[in-house]
Amino acid sequence: MAQKPSIPKGTRDFGPEEMNRRNYIFDQIRDVFRLFAFRPIETPALENLSTLLGKYGEEGDRLLFKILNSGDFLEKTTEHSDYKKMTTQISEKGLRYDLTVPFARYVVQHQNEITFPFKRYQMQPVWRADRPQKGRYREFYQCDADVIGSKSLLNEAELVKMIDEVFQRLNIRVIVKINNRKILAGIAEYIGAPDKIIDITVAIDKLDKIGLEKVNAELFEKGIEAASIERLQPVLQMQGSSEEKMNFLKNLLASSETGLKGIEEIQTLWNYIASYTLKAEVELDLTLARGLNYYTGAIFEVKALDAQIGSISGGGRYDDLTGIFGLPNMSGVGISFGADRIYDVMEELKLFPEASLAATRVLFVNFGDKETAYCLPIIENLRKQNMAVEMYPDSAKLQKQFSYANARQIPFVAIAGEREMNEGKIVLKNMQSGEEKLIAKDQIQENLH
Amino acid sequence: MAQKPSIPKGTRDFGPEEMNRRNYIFDQIRDVFRLFAFRPIETPALENLSTLLGKYGEEGDRLLFKILNSGDFLEKTTEHSDYKKMTTQISEKGLRYDLTVPFARYVVQHQNEITFPFKRYQMQPVWRADRPQKGRYREFYQCDADVIGSKSLLNEAELVKMIDEVFQRLNIRVIVKINNRKILAGIAEYIGAPDKIIDITVAIDKLDKIGLEKVNAELFEKGIEAASIERLQPVLQMQGSSEEKMNFLKNLLASSETGLKGIEEIQTLWNYIASYTLKAEVELDLTLARGLNYYTGAIFEVKALDAQIGSISGGGRYDDLTGIFGLPNMSGVGISFGADRIYDVMEELKLFPEASLAATRVLFVNFGDKETAYCLPIIENLRKQNMAVEMYPDSAKLQKQFSYANARQIPFVAIAGEREMNEGKIVLKNMQSGEEKLIAKDQIQENLH
Repeated sequence: MAQKPSIPKGTRDFGPEEMNRRNYIFDQIRDVFRLFAFRPIETPALENLSTLLGKYGEEGDRLLFKILNSGDFLEKTTEHSDYKKMTTQISEKGLRYDLTVPFARYVVQHQNEITFPFKRYQMQPVWRADRPQKGRYREFYQCDADVIGSKSLLNEAELVKMIDEVFQRLNIRVIVKINNRKILAGIAEYIGAPDKIIDITVAIDKLDKIGLEKVNAELFEKGIEAASIERLQPVLQMQGSSEEKMNFLKNLLASSETGLKGIEEIQTLWNYIASYTLKAEVELDLTLARGLNYYTGAIFEVKALDAQIGSISGGGRYDDLTGIFGLPNMSGVGISFGADRIYDVMEELKLFPEASLAATRVLFVNFGDKETAYCLPIIENLRKQNMAVEMYPDSAKLQKQFSYANARQIPFVAIAGEREMNEGKIVLKNMQSGEEKLIAKDQIQENLH
Repeated sequence: MAQKPSIPKGTRDFGPEEMNRRNYIFDQIRDVFRLFAFRPIETPALENLSTLLGKYGEEGDRLLFKILNSGDFLEKTTEHSDYKKMTTQISEKGLRYDLTVPFARYVVQHQNEITFPFKRYQMQPVWRADRPQKGRYREFYQCDADVIGSKSLLNEAELVKMIDEVFQRLNIRVIVKINNRKILAGIAEYIGAPDKIIDITVAIDKLDKIGLEKVNAELFEKGIEAASIERLQPVLQMQGSSEEKMNFLKNLLASSETGLKGIEEIQTLWNYIASYTLKAEVELDLTLARGLNYYTGAIFEVKALDAQIGSISGGGRYDDLTGIFGLPNMSGVGISFGADRIYDVMEELKLFPEASLAATRVLFVNFGDKETAYCLPIIENLRKQNMAVEMYPDSAKLQKQFSYANARQIPFVAIAGEREMNEGKIVLKNMQSGEEKLIAKDQIQENLH
């Protein structure tokens, strides 16, 4: 009996049109990575669970796809009632959850082969057993670029320029929001609540939406003392450009070593960025709370100006990316492009180029073996000129062959019958205008416009 | 305590050099697929086990990587002692084992969106829990191109030309061996042993190695009657070119409808192929036993002439690719390129191009912030000219920066100090010859040769 075929929830098939559009995005990102001298690596989809577990918090551990051991997995199993304990006995491998942990593992494992600083990019799918919902999938691509083994802020600047370059090419207007964890730490220190960085940042983020009064109430609820909240007020009411904010904070945080270090970092980054010609807006944004659990310096987030959607790229610096695998003091900074969201933005703003290089330019009609023998060398020659060309494989009814050309949106159809063959010619039909031209068989290329 | 990092056996990390070489192969294959009007699709790594099980024989079922269900998989489990029965209760999904079954599933699931004949290509990893050994991995890429929904032998011809084109580009001399299951069936029918196709083919294949006498002995052992073996002798002793063999078989199999159909197919294919300019050798080879369990017409196998390695590409026709998923009478024909073996051949024959477009062309030395500000616009401009360029991120000792350039095999180093900056110039050092040139900062590109 035939099964009704389907795919697991949260996964997707990509058809040709979708693939061409996705590849358009991937190709642009890859090309920018290449120009900035990042180098490709790939890691296996399967990692040992010992590599993955404990790296993404408790929820992450739960969301890992785990592979059942091969063969008789029950043979050595002692646990049969607690599924969590049993999992560790019947599963040793899991699917890649992101590209950062495998990269850290890669760097440690191959440290003797790598020339540092190491700039790598990686574009591969990752898997998460998340509850599927609109725009969230269980399999999706990440496109990451990281520099490891250099603390220079020039790396941050290059990443910002790369973001700018990618979105220029894709024709998406963006703002790059930049924060620095050290500034946030300085503020928390300054107001006397050094352990409340995240609460403070999240509260600042709500200022526009709920107003100053409610933000202050929320901070109080989070257990921050009234005196601390009082000291925070100048920060909450801070106005002006990124440069003005930096100057303001420099005075305010004069007593916090960490805070001043953060401001110095931001200023250095700003100076570097000023050397490039950027199309993207760049803004210091103290409300960026993204990845505060692991980033130690710069934090980036990119938003599309013309689409209502979350961040389409982001990243930051980790001071100790590889310590967990036994290689301490390796500072790394990186960014990640969210291909799915970028796709949605480009779809919404109609930014995909109409015709793609990938599409068939001419369909040759099939009238039978003799005509096929006449056409195949012509087809071979057009392909040599880098043109995607095909012949309808069966000598089906003409109507069927033209329907195929229409359905596939092939712009030209080439027809060669007895008479054209005798004269060394071909009829070329423009499928949009309906115009037909009788031309020499070696002059097709010039007429495909 | 730090873990010593490793990856699951049978899997691989690919570093930058390996990636550039692999991408070189993938890019050529993809480009040929595109020129022949094949269109890309991608399917999820995870498929429902109901899609995969029973499609690859008993061994295939065993070699599928199975995903443990999320959450408390024991909750609804009734079986706790037989691991095979338990597997079906605690695992619903598995990793893709090849690209053919997911493609068949895709065609059935999306049949209403597809314009037939459908030419698709797919280049994705597959996973098999095989015993790892030299050249055999648990994760590897397949590069498949198939046409579905057309019985025309022009498809077979186009695939042969594609094979020729791919290996011309990669500079690998190959022979394309072609067989047809219907001819083999005709022979088996003719000698009165219609159910012994595979035994006969395998025996013919051993002719060169073990000689006629032992082949006959082996056929007898397989239960083929003496009279049948007698009738097979003319086939075993057949000599000559592919065309001569076709003519010989045409006479011999005159009473077998299936056999004659097979010969007609091969002749039609040969006629089509004659219309192309092929560099590859093409040969009728009755010993090709590859995929005899599922192919119904043409069978292809490609061997490198200058390397001792198994087949580097192969394929064939299935008359009913999608029947198992409920869509009958969909004939398909396809080929698959084995990226890992092609890589090994190119490595052995030293066919990889020396310098790749992907590699950094110039490293800019970092002397500090002022010099960086001078260099960044120059770097930006070179990247606009499609050149991969980088600046050493830290103002480290000069020796360290030059070591980096050497280790990364970067051919030029650009140096700008106080004096060069004042004059709008740059020193360009050729790392191979040691030659240094003082040039205007906007004339770097012309000097990078």
